[in-house]
Amino acid sequence: MPEFIDNGTRFRLTDPMLAPAAAGYLWNRRMMIQMTCRGYAVSQYMDPEPRKYAHVPTIAGQSFMQPEHRYFAHHPGRFFYVRDNRSGSLFSVPHEPVRARPDSFVFEPGLSDMRWTVEKDGLRVELCLELPEDDVAEIWTATVSNIGESTRDVSFVPYFPVGYMSWMNMGGHFDAELGAVICTSVTPYQAVEDYFRNRHLKDITFLAADRLPDHFEVSQQAFEGEGGLADPSALQAGKNLAGGDAAYEIPAGILQYNLLLPAGGCERFRLIFGPAHDKSEVAMLIGKYLRGDADAVQKATRAYMAEGLGSFEIETPDAAFDAFVNHWLPRQVFYHGDTNRLTTDPQTRNYLQDALGMVFIRPDTTREVILRTASQQSVSGKVPDGILLRPDATLKYINQIPHTDHAVWLVIATCAYLDETNDRSILAASAGWSDSDVKDSLYDHVTRALSFLAGEVDERGLPLIAQGDWNDPMNMVGYKGKGVSGWLAEASSYAMSLWAEVCEAEADRETAGWLRGEAGALVERINAHLWDGDWYARGITDDGKHFGVSADEEGRIYLNAQSWAMLCGAADEDRQARMLRAIDEHLETPYGVAMFAPAYTRMREDVGRLTQKWPGSAENGAVYNHAAAFYAAGLYHIKESDRAYRVLRAMLTEPKAEDIAVRGQLPLYIPNYYRGAWRQYPRTAGRSSNLFNTGTASWFYRLVIEQLCGLRGTRDGVVIAPQIPSDWDRCRFRRTFRGAIFEVDVERVCGLTDREIDVDRELLDGDVLRRVERGRTYQVRVRLPERA
Amino acid sequence: MPEFIDNGTRFRLTDPMLAPAAAGYLWNRRMMIQMTCRGYAVSQYMDPEPRKYAHVPTIAGQSFMQPEHRYFAHHPGRFFYVRDNRSGSLFSVPHEPVRARPDSFVFEPGLSDMRWTVEKDGLRVELCLELPEDDVAEIWTATVSNIGESTRDVSFVPYFPVGYMSWMNMGGHFDAELGAVICTSVTPYQAVEDYFRNRHLKDITFLAADRLPDHFEVSQQAFEGEGGLADPSALQAGKNLAGGDAAYEIPAGILQYNLLLPAGGCERFRLIFGPAHDKSEVAMLIGKYLRGDADAVQKATRAYMAEGLGSFEIETPDAAFDAFVNHWLPRQVFYHGDTNRLTTDPQTRNYLQDALGMVFIRPDTTREVILRTASQQSVSGKVPDGILLRPDATLKYINQIPHTDHAVWLVIATCAYLDETNDRSILAASAGWSDSDVKDSLYDHVTRALSFLAGEVDERGLPLIAQGDWNDPMNMVGYKGKGVSGWLAEASSYAMSLWAEVCEAEADRETAGWLRGEAGALVERINAHLWDGDWYARGITDDGKHFGVSADEEGRIYLNAQSWAMLCGAADEDRQARMLRAIDEHLETPYGVAMFAPAYTRMREDVGRLTQKWPGSAENGAVYNHAAAFYAAGLYHIKESDRAYRVLRAMLTEPKAEDIAVRGQLPLYIPNYYRGAWRQYPRTAGRSSNLFNTGTASWFYRLVIEQLCGLRGTRDGVVIAPQIPSDWDRCRFRRTFRGAIFEVDVERVCGLTDREIDVDRELLDGDVLRRVERGRTYQVRVRLPERA
Repeated sequence: MPEFIDNGTRFRLTDPMLAPAAAGYLWNRRMMIQMTCRGYAVSQYMDPEPRKYAHVPTIAGQSFMQPEHRYFAHHPGRFFYVRDNRSGSLFSVPHEPVRARPDSFVFEPGLSDMRWTVEKDGLRVELCLELPEDDVAEIWTATVSNIGESTRDVSFVPYFPVGYMSWMNMGGHFDAELGAVICTSVTPYQAVEDYFRNRHLKDITFLAADRLPDHFEVSQQAFEGEGGLADPSALQAGKNLAGGDAAYEIPAGILQYNLLLPAGGCERFRLIFGPAHDKSEVAMLIGKYLRGDADAVQKATRAYMAEGLGSFEIETPDAAFDAFVNHWLPRQVFYHGDTNRLTTDPQTRNYLQDALGMVFIRPDTTREVILRTASQQSVSGKVPDGILLRPDATLKYINQIPHTDHAVWLVIATCAYLDETNDRSILAASAGWSDSDVKDSLYDHVTRALSFLAGEVDERGLPLIAQGDWNDPMNMVGYKGKGVSGWLAEASSYAMSLWAEVCEAEADRETAGWLRGEAGALVERINAHLWDGDWYARGITDDGKHFGVSADEEGRIYLNAQSWAMLCGAADEDRQARMLRAIDEHLETPYGVAMFAPAYTRMREDVGRLTQKWPGSAENGAVYNHAAAFYAAGLYHIKESDRAYRVLRAMLTEPKAEDIAVRGQLPLYIPNYYRGAWRQYPRTAGRSSNLFNTGTASWFYRLVIEQLCGLRGTRDGVVIAPQIPSDWDRCRFRRTFRGAIFEVDVERVCGLTDREIDVDRELLDGDVLRRVERGRTYQVRVRLPERA
Repeated sequence: MPEFIDNGTRFRLTDPMLAPAAAGYLWNRRMMIQMTCRGYAVSQYMDPEPRKYAHVPTIAGQSFMQPEHRYFAHHPGRFFYVRDNRSGSLFSVPHEPVRARPDSFVFEPGLSDMRWTVEKDGLRVELCLELPEDDVAEIWTATVSNIGESTRDVSFVPYFPVGYMSWMNMGGHFDAELGAVICTSVTPYQAVEDYFRNRHLKDITFLAADRLPDHFEVSQQAFEGEGGLADPSALQAGKNLAGGDAAYEIPAGILQYNLLLPAGGCERFRLIFGPAHDKSEVAMLIGKYLRGDADAVQKATRAYMAEGLGSFEIETPDAAFDAFVNHWLPRQVFYHGDTNRLTTDPQTRNYLQDALGMVFIRPDTTREVILRTASQQSVSGKVPDGILLRPDATLKYINQIPHTDHAVWLVIATCAYLDETNDRSILAASAGWSDSDVKDSLYDHVTRALSFLAGEVDERGLPLIAQGDWNDPMNMVGYKGKGVSGWLAEASSYAMSLWAEVCEAEADRETAGWLRGEAGALVERINAHLWDGDWYARGITDDGKHFGVSADEEGRIYLNAQSWAMLCGAADEDRQARMLRAIDEHLETPYGVAMFAPAYTRMREDVGRLTQKWPGSAENGAVYNHAAAFYAAGLYHIKESDRAYRVLRAMLTEPKAEDIAVRGQLPLYIPNYYRGAWRQYPRTAGRSSNLFNTGTASWFYRLVIEQLCGLRGTRDGVVIAPQIPSDWDRCRFRRTFRGAIFEVDVERVCGLTDREIDVDRELLDGDVLRRVERGRTYQVRVRLPERA
């Protein structure tokens, strides 16, 4: 059975057939690799833009990271063939491409490595993949053991396909001096300027091992022959690899080791695979990782991962939830925050939300992100669609399309940073503007962002949507310059209220007053123009048509327009109750709450791209976890904590065979979506995008810490207000906060009528502990009444 | 054995193992398909830019047509599985993906169709692929016969993978009303403008048959299962296709027919596969091609192909040469000239040379091309790098890089048109300019192009090369604005001399005199600055360094710089002899004459991209047939006719197993290159690019007609001056020329000392027949002395 092991820090899957695309992922500061349990790989690194060192077998399109990655026979992978030289029988580890049924199979992705143990016909192969802390390289350890009773004569053949590197120049050869397969290429270009621009690129892919192979091959075609990948001609009985090269042919790193293993005997190999600029870099990496101190490498990598594990631990009645929240969730938050999703021009909203999660891990990063964002604002106050992380970066893909919501996230991230750190010096920190030489304080930057946002409204005072807001693909609501966003009205009001508090604390009553006025006016307009009877409309199109309303046959109700109405306070209790009923009726599915429903089945030219996403894919009718997280936020806001927990919990793949089979995903990360449109497409509903890039991680973490556990900072101190599910008797957590440690024990107590809080055995008056002392450990006991 | 059949109009290959990538190709005005003997396909159509309707399984990169296309397991193909329902045994036709060894195999690509006949275990499958004349669609006929003695129960399963259509939206379903698999997609876009731009695109791919299948499947993954393409799970014994759909999954058209075939029995199917804009277009195509008159379709297609077969027939001692020149060569010329290589922005030099070949097929096209080119010239006289064929076309890829040679080809194409048609009205035809409202005569346009060319020279008077000339990838010789091209000096001189003749004929003595002066001056400069002792240098770099000279270790001698020195008359007899010796020594290989040698093995930053093409690929040290054709032209020019024939003949794949195996190509077209660098890379030398896009076809055809057969037009009439190889005793040909027919019989006569020409049994004085009468048939006898 699939299960968490090692105190939740590792997962174990014992069936390669259960979910072929189920994968783990590793990363470091410069690269990422996602590997399926069966051996296919997707990896990329920064050079400085995202690039690959193992390619598909055809000229690849450049694209942003796509959900639901498709694997196929010649997809890049890391394969280890094992041939019995007496019988000629062949299998491959992890599982592809031979797909022979193993006697036993274990895939164990951990926090800083991935392991496999596969046994077949008396042989055991153990694999371990690790990444170095800072270099771009895969470090593989492989052990082949004879677990049978008699001596075995086997060939062990690591096979690392490199794929179609370049139409301009590609090839490969074995470099005897380095003991490595060196695959060379030149990144294609046409204009001479690009030659100079590309000169620094790591156009080599190499594979080296800690011992020279007995035989090798470099040409994929020569290796495969007529037998194909599942039964390569070059590995047919009695044959050894021919030792050829690849000249403008598709190269691969293929090493053959002939082993004579006595009963109980084993042989161990270390390999390194990755890109390099030149041979001296290959030599350096070999020296460092094959000849260097393997333990030191492992230690550094583990230390790097540990750094990201945050300062929060929880113990609840839900062990899988604990494993996820204590290890895998902060890891996912750290991945986003430390790598910026491996882009050089993150979308502003992603960049800020990823940084928001980092307040619990490394708040300096959050500070830096906020200030860099501010420095790329226009003097008008407008926040750009993407943030350039390098001077040579450019805005790409969706960042070239005008969206209107970015100011909101600047406010939210700044407030989250203040809540957690109380580092109010950030408000005075000065930042420039993209189109002026003047510098101003962050406080002014954020205020001006809101003032710009307040100005971009229609005659009703509702915010224009342009070619999209937080729902990117809704690009045709307002492209003529008139359509407005109901969600953005709510989000603006929410952001303005948040910022008004900061202004008040800074004694800027004028700005605070103006913001409160604007926020209130927005709420009035929302209620005047967007309430549809049982829920809020998502917006009004260029032609003045409300959408996301009961009159719509498709896209009738949108989750975000409801969640944020809760957050901004637009909905009174009666409306809240109606919204919740409507959400239950229209959006609830066995796999979570859909972002909207019914899914579109045809193009609606006054809504846009969203409707062209196939039902069940991406946003169209999907259980979009980022939206679900905000629904949970709204629910906590209105104290619907049981519902909120249910919504959060539904995002996690259960460590059970059925759930993994349906979702095609291991419980190691929250994907950006699960397929929805459950009513129309039950066959595909629940399927995971298998893409772990999502703002969900930050919000999930924040909600668990600040709402579920309920320990959140204020200007004065810390609020202690857990909202645990009513069926939990007890929950304990430990959290580092502003240099102090809080050990909190939350219990339901029979017969209690009101919540009681003890701090270090003293009863707290209210739920705010003022003046948190650095270095101190607080013992907190929260007693909650049992729920009805 | 492989051989030409049906009088050379069809080729027969009987071994699918001989050359797996050996392919035939079909096209019509809107599409092209290249199919390997084993069933993989590369196809594209214009919509209006080149697009695919069958895709690779991953997001594909957009690129120009690449040489040496790589096939892999999940490459698009057209596969027909046959399963014996009693034994469960499976094979696929043509050969992929099951790769079962057939009892017999015949692949017969013809001029307007491709056929296969494959027999295995008492079953015969015949396939035929045809294209309609004007629509984008593949029309397949498949016949399954029982050639055994007992009744057979088989499932016949056409399997047409559609691949990764779009990240934005893709899927598929079986439309019972149309009886077709409909795979839908939306071409991805980000900006709202592109939505409107893309709305007309044919985003559907469909497969329909002339009868409803017993079962079907639409999801590739569901079909393959764990068995993979070679042994699909859905076809395992006893199973029928499950009839699913594909929802954001990779779709395929898969139809299952269960057949009970008595001994001798057969069943015939017609299928249609292709793109469509909507279901009504699918219905229209089904009506036209599955329910319509199949014979009429075939007739129209054959008539279209016949139109392109030109007006020239030859009979020589070399039967394979005859088959190629009479059918396949004009077909290749026609493909280029009628489809513009399926681009909307052909490179100017390609566009004009392709049109040059069309003078022998449909000279109106040549006229149109010349005038369109002139109309896109700048008033400065500059000829652009690419010609836009539609108002919405843009310059792409290499057409965005400044090259300096285009004027040369405008002159050459215009002169070729005049030589063939004597339609001097073209000179007065008026054309606009890209940057002015004025219109001027073509005569002025061409003269101004040369005057611009004459002005773009360095202080020595040699032409600047900018980022390239006819050798595109030599992009770093002159990017700083100083480097010059030796080849372009020769080509300019040659073009100026050609145009001077036209000017003289038009009684424009002033221009003629100026051009002769310039041409002569260029020859002097070439000899003063570029003669290296035994051959001509290719050019002089920005830093003043001669290259393509004996002092160079790599890229020491370039063929073009020699061939065009012959054409422009720069080389005297002594120099010609030295050049020929040098070419023999350095450039001759068993697979033809290399474009330069030795191939580069490392980047040379003062020459450029060329050096980054891997040895043996594309231009780097390759037998580049276009260059070889000009070498042949130069050789005919200096009356080296035996060498010239050898050079031409080396471009043709022999219809012999050995040659097909080495080159990986059938003898149906001239590819743009064969791999060279024979001395450094003997393993890959000779391998075909398998890309039939090349200016070689036009020049090969022209040289055979005008030089080998020696019948070419002049202002006054026709020159009759055959230059047949010395070991040919006889050669006959028939040619339509200016409305007359020439039937020419060339014979070597023992004891003759001087050539003798009879026209209609009257001895001709000299070799020019003046005044060719339309409608008349001329019987010409040429008697040649035997050579020493």
